[in-house]
Amino acid sequence: MSDTFPMPATVRPATLSDLEALLRLYVQLSPDNAATSPAAAAAGLARMIAHADVSLLVAEVEGSVAATVTLIVVPNLTHNARPWIQLENMVVDESVRRSGTGRALIEAACDLARGRGAYKIQLQSADHRHGAHAFYEAAGFTASSLGFRRYFE
Amino acid sequence: MSDTFPMPATVRPATLSDLEALLRLYVQLSPDNAATSPAAAAAGLARMIAHADVSLLVAEVEGSVAATVTLIVVPNLTHNARPWIQLENMVVDESVRRSGTGRALIEAACDLARGRGAYKIQLQSADHRHGAHAFYEAAGFTASSLGFRRYFE
Repeated sequence: MSDTFPMPATVRPATLSDLEALLRLYVQLSPDNAATSPAAAAAGLARMIAHADVSLLVAEVEGSVAATVTLIVVPNLTHNARPWIQLENMVVDESVRRSGTGRALIEAACDLARGRGAYKIQLQSADHRHGAHAFYEAAGFTASSLGFRRYFE
Repeated sequence: MSDTFPMPATVRPATLSDLEALLRLYVQLSPDNAATSPAAAAAGLARMIAHADVSLLVAEVEGSVAATVTLIVVPNLTHNARPWIQLENMVVDESVRRSGTGRALIEAACDLARGRGAYKIQLQSADHRHGAHAFYEAAGFTASSLGFRRYFE
Protein backbone atom coordinates (compact mmCIF):
# COMPACT_ATOMS: atom_id res chain seq x y z
CA MET A 1 0.00 0.00 0.00
CA SER A 2 1.37 3.42 -0.89
CA ASP A 3 0.44 7.02 -0.20
CA THR A 4 0.68 7.74 -3.91
CA PHE A 5 -2.09 5.34 -5.00
CA PRO A 6 -5.19 6.19 -2.95
CA MET A 7 -7.88 3.52 -3.04
CA PRO A 8 -11.39 4.84 -3.74
CA ALA A 9 -13.53 4.56 -0.61
CA THR A 10 -17.30 4.88 -0.34
CA VAL A 11 -18.55 6.27 2.97
CA ARG A 12 -22.11 5.44 4.08
CA PRO A 13 -24.14 4.97 7.29
CA ALA A 14 -23.86 1.47 8.78
CA THR A 15 -26.78 -0.94 8.47
CA LEU A 16 -27.68 -3.95 10.61
CA SER A 17 -25.95 -6.22 8.11
CA ASP A 18 -22.59 -4.57 8.86
CA LEU A 19 -22.47 -6.12 12.34
CA GLU A 20 -19.90 -8.81 11.61
CA ALA A 21 -17.59 -6.46 9.75
CA LEU A 22 -17.81 -3.91 12.58
CA LEU A 23 -16.97 -6.46 15.25
CA ARG A 24 -13.96 -7.59 13.21
CA LEU A 25 -12.73 -3.97 13.07
CA TYR A 26 -13.33 -3.36 16.79
CA VAL A 27 -11.06 -6.26 17.69
CA GLN A 28 -8.25 -4.26 16.03
CA LEU A 29 -9.11 -1.42 18.43
CA SER A 30 -8.92 -3.71 21.47
CA PRO A 31 -8.59 -7.51 21.61
CA ASP A 32 -11.05 -7.37 24.55
CA ASN A 33 -13.80 -6.68 22.06
CA ALA A 34 -13.59 -10.28 20.81
CA ALA A 35 -15.55 -11.15 23.96
CA THR A 36 -18.56 -8.98 23.05
CA SER A 37 -21.71 -11.10 22.88
CA PRO A 38 -23.21 -11.16 19.34
CA ALA A 39 -26.73 -10.65 20.75
CA ALA A 40 -25.68 -7.62 22.84
CA ALA A 41 -23.82 -6.22 19.84
CA ALA A 42 -26.82 -6.67 17.51
CA ALA A 43 -29.09 -4.87 19.98
CA GLY A 44 -26.47 -2.12 20.45
CA LEU A 45 -26.11 -1.61 16.70
CA ALA A 46 -29.89 -1.35 16.29
CA ARG A 47 -30.02 1.30 19.05
CA MET A 48 -27.21 3.29 17.47
CA ILE A 49 -28.74 3.19 13.98
CA ALA A 50 -32.10 4.37 15.39
CA HIS A 51 -30.53 7.18 17.49
CA ALA A 52 -31.15 10.69 16.12
CA ASP A 53 -27.86 12.04 17.52
CA VAL A 54 -25.59 9.13 16.59
CA SER A 55 -24.09 8.38 13.17
CA LEU A 56 -22.19 5.15 12.74
CA LEU A 57 -20.32 5.46 9.46
CA VAL A 58 -18.47 2.80 7.46
CA ALA A 59 -16.06 3.13 4.53
CA GLU A 60 -16.14 0.46 1.86
CA VAL A 61 -13.10 -0.36 -0.26
CA GLU A 62 -13.55 -2.76 -3.16
CA GLY A 63 -16.98 -3.77 -1.83
CA SER A 64 -15.88 -4.57 1.74
CA VAL A 65 -16.24 -2.57 4.94
CA ALA A 66 -12.68 -1.44 5.71
CA ALA A 67 -13.08 1.37 8.25
CA THR A 68 -15.58 2.83 10.69
CA VAL A 69 -16.17 5.76 13.00
CA THR A 70 -19.04 6.80 15.27
CA LEU A 71 -20.18 10.43 15.64
CA ILE A 72 -22.19 11.67 18.59
CA VAL A 73 -23.92 15.05 18.29
CA VAL A 74 -23.77 16.69 21.73
CA PRO A 75 -26.23 19.48 22.64
CA ASN A 76 -24.49 22.41 24.26
CA LEU A 77 -24.85 25.72 26.06
CA THR A 78 -21.45 27.32 25.47
CA HIS A 79 -20.27 28.68 22.10
CA ASN A 80 -23.66 30.26 21.48
CA ALA A 81 -25.37 26.91 22.15
CA ARG A 82 -23.93 25.30 19.01
CA PRO A 83 -23.60 21.51 19.34
CA TRP A 84 -20.28 19.70 19.08
CA ILE A 85 -19.31 16.26 17.83
CA GLN A 86 -17.54 13.48 19.68
CA LEU A 87 -15.82 10.86 17.52
CA GLU A 88 -15.40 7.37 18.96
CA ASN A 89 -14.39 3.89 17.87
CA MET A 90 -12.52 4.96 14.74
CA VAL A 91 -10.78 1.99 13.12
CA VAL A 92 -9.14 1.60 9.73
CA ASP A 93 -8.41 -2.00 8.78
CA GLU A 94 -4.69 -2.72 8.86
CA SER A 95 -4.80 -3.82 5.21
CA VAL A 96 -5.91 -0.40 3.92
CA ARG A 97 -4.01 2.01 6.18
CA ARG A 98 -2.20 4.86 4.39
CA SER A 99 -4.47 4.43 1.36
CA GLY A 100 -6.74 7.46 1.91
CA THR A 101 -9.59 5.40 3.38
CA GLY A 102 -9.29 6.93 6.86
CA ARG A 103 -9.01 10.39 5.38
CA ALA A 104 -12.19 9.90 3.32
CA LEU A 105 -13.99 8.74 6.45
CA ILE A 106 -12.80 11.63 8.62
CA GLU A 107 -13.70 14.18 5.94
CA ALA A 108 -17.20 12.68 5.72
CA ALA A 109 -17.43 12.99 9.52
CA CYS A 110 -16.37 16.66 9.37
CA ASP A 111 -18.92 17.36 6.60
CA LEU A 112 -21.62 15.78 8.74
CA ALA A 113 -20.47 17.82 11.77
CA ARG A 114 -20.64 21.07 9.80
CA GLY A 115 -24.10 20.08 8.53
CA ARG A 116 -25.24 19.85 12.16
CA GLY A 117 -23.84 23.33 12.91
CA ALA A 118 -21.19 21.95 15.26
CA TYR A 119 -18.46 24.27 16.57
CA LYS A 120 -15.88 21.50 17.07
CA ILE A 121 -15.20 17.83 16.56
CA GLN A 122 -13.05 15.95 19.07
CA LEU A 123 -11.74 12.52 20.02
CA GLN A 124 -9.23 10.80 22.28
CA SER A 125 -6.41 8.64 20.97
CA ALA A 126 -4.35 6.40 23.28
CA ASP A 127 -0.83 7.66 24.05
CA HIS A 128 0.93 4.81 22.25
CA ARG A 129 -0.92 5.18 18.90
CA HIS A 130 1.67 7.37 17.19
CA GLY A 131 0.46 6.48 13.70
CA ALA A 132 -3.06 7.58 14.60
CA HIS A 133 -1.74 10.84 16.08
CA ALA A 134 0.07 11.71 12.85
CA PHE A 135 -3.07 10.82 10.90
CA TYR A 136 -5.32 13.14 12.96
CA GLU A 137 -2.82 16.00 12.76
CA ALA A 138 -2.65 15.63 8.98
CA ALA A 139 -6.46 15.77 8.97
CA GLY A 140 -6.49 19.18 10.67
CA PHE A 141 -6.87 18.11 14.29
CA THR A 142 -4.71 19.56 17.08
CA ALA A 143 -3.57 17.67 20.20
CA SER A 144 -4.00 20.56 22.63
CA SER A 145 -5.50 18.64 25.53
CA LEU A 146 -5.04 15.55 27.65
CA GLY A 147 -7.64 12.81 27.53
CA PHE A 148 -8.65 11.58 30.98
CA ARG A 149 -10.51 8.31 31.51
CA ARG A 150 -11.79 6.34 34.46
CA TYR A 151 -12.99 2.77 33.90
CA PHE A 152 -15.73 1.00 35.84
CA GLU A 153 -16.17 -2.68 36.65
CA MET B 1 -10.07 28.16 51.27
CA SER B 2 -8.32 25.10 52.64
CA ASP B 3 -8.22 21.39 51.85
CA THR B 4 -8.82 20.64 55.51
CA PHE B 5 -12.22 22.35 55.75
CA PRO B 6 -14.41 20.93 52.99
CA MET B 7 -17.54 22.98 52.29
CA PRO B 8 -20.75 20.94 52.08
CA ALA B 9 -21.97 20.85 48.48
CA THR B 10 -25.40 19.76 47.23
CA VAL B 11 -25.39 18.24 43.74
CA ARG B 12 -28.62 18.34 41.70
CA PRO B 13 -29.78 18.45 38.05
CA ALA B 14 -29.85 21.97 36.60
CA THR B 15 -33.19 23.72 36.05
CA LEU B 16 -34.10 26.54 33.68
CA SER B 17 -33.61 29.05 36.48
CA ASP B 18 -29.89 28.16 36.68
CA LEU B 19 -29.19 29.78 33.31
CA GLU B 20 -27.51 32.94 34.62
CA ALA B 21 -25.35 31.05 37.11
CA LEU B 22 -24.28 28.58 34.39
CA LEU B 23 -23.32 31.35 31.97
CA ARG B 24 -21.24 33.02 34.69
CA LEU B 25 -19.38 29.74 35.27
CA TYR B 26 -18.84 29.11 31.54
CA VAL B 27 -17.06 32.46 31.18
CA GLN B 28 -14.43 31.04 33.58
CA LEU B 29 -14.03 28.15 31.11
CA SER B 30 -13.52 30.50 28.17
CA PRO B 31 -13.97 34.30 28.03
CA ASP B 32 -15.47 33.76 24.55
CA ASN B 33 -18.58 32.42 26.23
CA ALA B 34 -19.45 35.93 27.41
CA ALA B 35 -20.65 36.49 23.83
CA THR B 36 -23.27 33.69 23.95
CA SER B 37 -26.72 35.13 23.24
CA PRO B 38 -29.07 34.75 26.24
CA ALA B 39 -31.91 33.56 23.97
CA ALA B 40 -29.73 30.88 22.31
CA ALA B 41 -28.49 29.80 25.73
CA ALA B 42 -32.01 29.56 27.18
CA ALA B 43 -33.13 27.40 24.25
CA GLY B 44 -29.97 25.27 24.56
CA LEU B 45 -30.51 24.74 28.28
CA ALA B 46 -34.13 23.68 27.70
CA ARG B 47 -32.97 21.16 25.06
CA MET B 48 -30.34 19.73 27.38
CA ILE B 49 -32.70 19.40 30.34
CA ALA B 50 -35.25 17.59 28.14
CA HIS B 51 -32.64 15.23 26.61
CA ALA B 52 -32.85 11.64 27.87
CA ASP B 53 -29.11 11.05 27.41
CA VAL B 54 -27.81 14.34 28.82
CA SER B 55 -27.47 15.29 32.50
CA LEU B 56 -26.47 18.83 33.32
CA LEU B 57 -25.52 18.84 37.01
CA VAL B 58 -24.84 21.76 39.33
CA ALA B 59 -23.30 21.85 42.80
CA GLU B 60 -24.64 24.39 45.28
CA VAL B 61 -22.51 25.76 48.10
CA GLU B 62 -24.20 27.93 50.71
CA GLY B 63 -27.28 28.22 48.50
CA SER B 64 -25.46 29.35 45.34
CA VAL B 65 -24.54 27.42 42.19
CA ALA B 66 -20.76 27.07 42.43
CA ALA B 67 -19.87 24.30 39.95
CA THR B 68 -21.26 22.42 36.98
CA VAL B 69 -20.60 19.50 34.69
CA THR B 70 -22.48 17.94 31.77
CA LEU B 71 -22.70 14.17 31.23
CA ILE B 72 -23.55 12.62 27.89
CA VAL B 73 -24.55 8.94 27.80
CA VAL B 74 -23.16 7.47 24.57
CA PRO B 75 -24.65 4.27 23.12
CA ASN B 76 -21.98 1.82 22.11
CA LEU B 77 -21.16 -1.45 20.36
CA THR B 78 -17.79 -2.32 21.88
CA HIS B 79 -17.29 -3.52 25.49
CA ASN B 80 -20.32 -5.78 25.23
CA ALA B 81 -22.45 -2.86 24.05
CA ARG B 82 -22.24 -1.05 27.41
CA PRO B 83 -22.63 2.73 27.04
CA TRP B 84 -19.97 5.18 28.15
CA ILE B 85 -20.10 8.70 29.52
CA GLN B 86 -18.53 11.86 28.13
CA LEU B 87 -18.02 14.71 30.58
CA GLU B 88 -17.97 18.24 29.20
CA ASN B 89 -18.02 21.82 30.43
CA MET B 90 -16.87 21.08 33.96
CA VAL B 91 -16.30 24.30 35.90
CA VAL B 92 -15.73 24.94 39.58
CA ASP B 93 -16.05 28.59 40.59
CA GLU B 94 -12.68 30.09 41.48
CA SER B 95 -13.98 31.03 44.95
CA VAL B 96 -14.65 27.41 45.99
CA ARG B 97 -11.74 25.52 44.40
CA ARG B 98 -9.92 23.06 46.69
CA SER B 99 -12.96 22.91 49.00
CA GLY B 100 -14.31 19.49 47.93
CA THR B 101 -17.04 20.94 45.70
CA GLY B 102 -15.50 19.62 42.48
CA ARG B 103 -14.90 16.24 44.08
CA ALA B 104 -18.55 16.01 45.21
CA LEU B 105 -19.64 16.86 41.67
CA ILE B 106 -17.36 14.33 39.98
CA GLU B 107 -18.39 11.57 42.40
CA ALA B 108 -22.05 12.31 41.64
CA ALA B 109 -21.19 12.06 37.94
CA CYS B 110 -19.48 8.69 38.47
CA ASP B 111 -22.47 7.39 40.46
CA LEU B 112 -24.78 8.45 37.65
CA ALA B 113 -22.47 6.77 35.10
CA ARG B 114 -22.47 3.50 37.04
CA GLY B 115 -26.26 3.71 37.30
CA ARG B 116 -26.43 3.81 33.50
CA GLY B 117 -24.19 0.72 33.25
CA ALA B 118 -21.35 2.69 31.65
CA TYR B 119 -17.95 1.02 31.18
CA LYS B 120 -15.97 4.28 31.30
CA ILE B 121 -16.23 8.01 31.87
CA GLN B 122 -13.94 10.36 29.97
CA LEU B 123 -13.17 14.01 29.31
CA GLN B 124 -10.58 16.27 27.74
CA SER B 125 -8.72 18.94 29.68
CA ALA B 126 -6.63 21.62 27.94
CA ASP B 127 -2.85 21.16 28.16
CA HIS B 128 -2.26 24.28 30.27
CA ARG B 129 -4.81 23.43 33.02
CA HIS B 130 -2.36 21.76 35.41
CA GLY B 131 -4.61 22.30 38.45
CA ALA B 132 -7.46 20.50 36.69
CA HIS B 133 -5.14 17.63 35.69
CA ALA B 134 -4.12 17.07 39.32
CA PHE B 135 -7.77 17.22 40.33
CA TYR B 136 -8.85 14.54 37.82
CA GLU B 137 -5.97 12.27 38.76
CA ALA B 138 -6.88 12.57 42.45
CA ALA B 139 -10.44 11.63 41.44
CA GLY B 140 -9.30 8.33 39.89
CA PHE B 141 -8.91 9.40 36.26
CA THR B 142 -5.84 8.52 34.19
CA ALA B 143 -4.36 10.69 31.43
CA SER B 144 -3.51 7.85 29.06
CA SER B 145 -4.57 9.49 25.82
CA LEU B 146 -4.20 12.66 23.81
CA GLY B 147 -7.25 14.80 23.16
CA PHE B 148 -7.56 15.88 19.53
CA ARG B 149 -9.85 18.71 18.42
CA ARG B 150 -10.69 20.44 15.18
CA TYR B 151 -12.71 23.66 15.32
CA PHE B 152 -15.14 24.88 12.65
CA GLU B 153 -16.09 28.42 11.67
